[in-house]
Amino acid sequence: MKTERATHLSFISAAIVTLLVSCAAQSAQAQRDPLPSWNDGASKKAIVAFVNKVTKAGSPDFVPPAERIATFDNDGTLWAEQPMYFQLLFSLHRVGVLAPQHPEWKTTEPFASLLKGDVKGALAGGEKAMLEIVMATHAGTTTEEFEKIVKDWIATAKHPVTKRPFTEMVYQPMLELLAYLRANDFKTFIVSGGGIEFMRPWTEKVYGIPPEQVVGSSIKTKFDASGSAPVLTRLPEINFIDDGPGKPVGINQHIGRPPIAAFGNSDGDLQMLQWTAAGSGARFCLYVHHTDAAREWAYDRTSHIGKLDKGLDEATQKGWTVVDMKTDWKTIYPAQK
Amino acid sequence: MKTERATHLSFISAAIVTLLVSCAAQSAQAQRDPLPSWNDGASKKAIVAFVNKVTKAGSPDFVPPAERIATFDNDGTLWAEQPMYFQLLFSLHRVGVLAPQHPEWKTTEPFASLLKGDVKGALAGGEKAMLEIVMATHAGTTTEEFEKIVKDWIATAKHPVTKRPFTEMVYQPMLELLAYLRANDFKTFIVSGGGIEFMRPWTEKVYGIPPEQVVGSSIKTKFDASGSAPVLTRLPEINFIDDGPGKPVGINQHIGRPPIAAFGNSDGDLQMLQWTAAGSGARFCLYVHHTDAAREWAYDRTSHIGKLDKGLDEATQKGWTVVDMKTDWKTIYPAQK
Repeated sequence: MKTERATHLSFISAAIVTLLVSCAAQSAQAQRDPLPSWNDGASKKAIVAFVNKVTKAGSPDFVPPAERIATFDNDGTLWAEQPMYFQLLFSLHRVGVLAPQHPEWKTTEPFASLLKGDVKGALAGGEKAMLEIVMATHAGTTTEEFEKIVKDWIATAKHPVTKRPFTEMVYQPMLELLAYLRANDFKTFIVSGGGIEFMRPWTEKVYGIPPEQVVGSSIKTKFDASGSAPVLTRLPEINFIDDGPGKPVGINQHIGRPPIAAFGNSDGDLQMLQWTAAGSGARFCLYVHHTDAAREWAYDRTSHIGKLDKGLDEATQKGWTVVDMKTDWKTIYPAQK
Repeated sequence: MKTERATHLSFISAAIVTLLVSCAAQSAQAQRDPLPSWNDGASKKAIVAFVNKVTKAGSPDFVPPAERIATFDNDGTLWAEQPMYFQLLFSLHRVGVLAPQHPEWKTTEPFASLLKGDVKGALAGGEKAMLEIVMATHAGTTTEEFEKIVKDWIATAKHPVTKRPFTEMVYQPMLELLAYLRANDFKTFIVSGGGIEFMRPWTEKVYGIPPEQVVGSSIKTKFDASGSAPVLTRLPEINFIDDGPGKPVGINQHIGRPPIAAFGNSDGDLQMLQWTAAGSGARFCLYVHHTDAAREWAYDRTSHIGKLDKGLDEATQKGWTVVDMKTDWKTIYPAQK
């Protein structure tokens, strides 16, 4: 009898110890810095203060979880965008792959310049040239085929300067920010001028953002049941440009309610931030300012990519958070694998 | 010492009892019928068998939670659609409200007929007439104003036949099905030919489906920063028709991956079901067949609303589940409040 009781007690002690250890671990977890790659400064303080006030039950700024919508630009906000948008590098690669099927490209601009490696010359044709490149490289396949093409490229392609995979040129501090918001019951969305179907194949793995939470520019698709199984074919026709004033439009179309927090890095994000800020209740707007020529790139008011001019003025005027990459971020990219 | 040990033991006994009671409650919960309004028949069996096989870890049909996408048509699938689409009743109501601002409507079709109560006459103008009615009643406001208009109408309007609020003319068995799928980590979406912004103001409350999981037809909107705060204005121009072949297109655009289960009631859902069925792995397609003239309405191959003709043949041929409303459903609508 005594032995039996001793066994019980010893079993119970073990259970209690397990419980205490588990509680201690949870407490350590809660106290661990959720944004370890952010230096303690105004930007980090503003982020944490906002999250605390909208998640604190009973606070006048409390926002129910269902309405905790956070939208992030992608190029220059979640990953790098220099020396040119990564999707453009993808397009150039595709021009090379597809060239044998298009002998006429040798003598037709913008392809002729591209095939000679003269990107600047090819893009001299402006928006029209860019559109032709996008259509030639993004249309004409099924959605499934295009997904595979993107997945194959992103798994193997390397950045021309850093020689790292593009998925390792995401910003570590922003990965932590995404995770921190989600841990506080935010729903995180990408709202990018980039192609929606160029991003969806990898955003879940890289950012933890599933395809249905990616908003972007798109070309039209068509349901085609003429083959053995129905497919969606990608057409050479613009469907939607998710940039500038298109961002609030895209958010309304896809999400159906305004964000309470929005994150960008360029004037192309300004309307998204303006629309977010205009909502009633607590709102948070943040610009990533590229100030770090040594670890990343430094550019703003006069850059041909990710120009941040009007947005910078408005952010200062309205008291939005402006991240100074050089001083706010301890690290830029995740540790190399 | 003995007393102290006795106290410990009594505390521990209480804890164990609490644990056991809690486990028993959970077990009862698990065994409770998740679809109580469904009669035990082939339809219910097929649903439960599908959910069991895709959620069973280690099963060859297992689908990871992130890919458990289920899409539901709305009109005639989640709520009734007779004697005409409820959104059309909303439009007719709006024509009445707006008529004083449009004296020209007294002599202009389709409005002149509508104002005389002659819906059939008004719709004799076909698609063009319908489009004019939609544009006149759905455009010209901000997105916020339109949301309020819909909310006010749906809170007060009554169905012309049953005299019940429209939100009580949803199908109780389908509400249970939505909840059952979500309890099994499915993400439930509406994919409807109806207006996306006509549905979003009430789908979360009525179906548990948040705005970002509603796909529908839409008109264009425009970002307007000319006033004191930026708004989105609704334009009298079609953006997207989410019907027939538009449904797979809309799903791809909004969700970015094909559903593994799709639910509809008409030929307008056929392409969504075909596209769903074409995916590799376990798939589930279901048609609600309106067979109950006594408790709801009976219609299919020749109906002017919710025509189910080709779809019924293809469902039979491909072995999709066809719900016989009359025999499969114990109740149609939720209990009256």
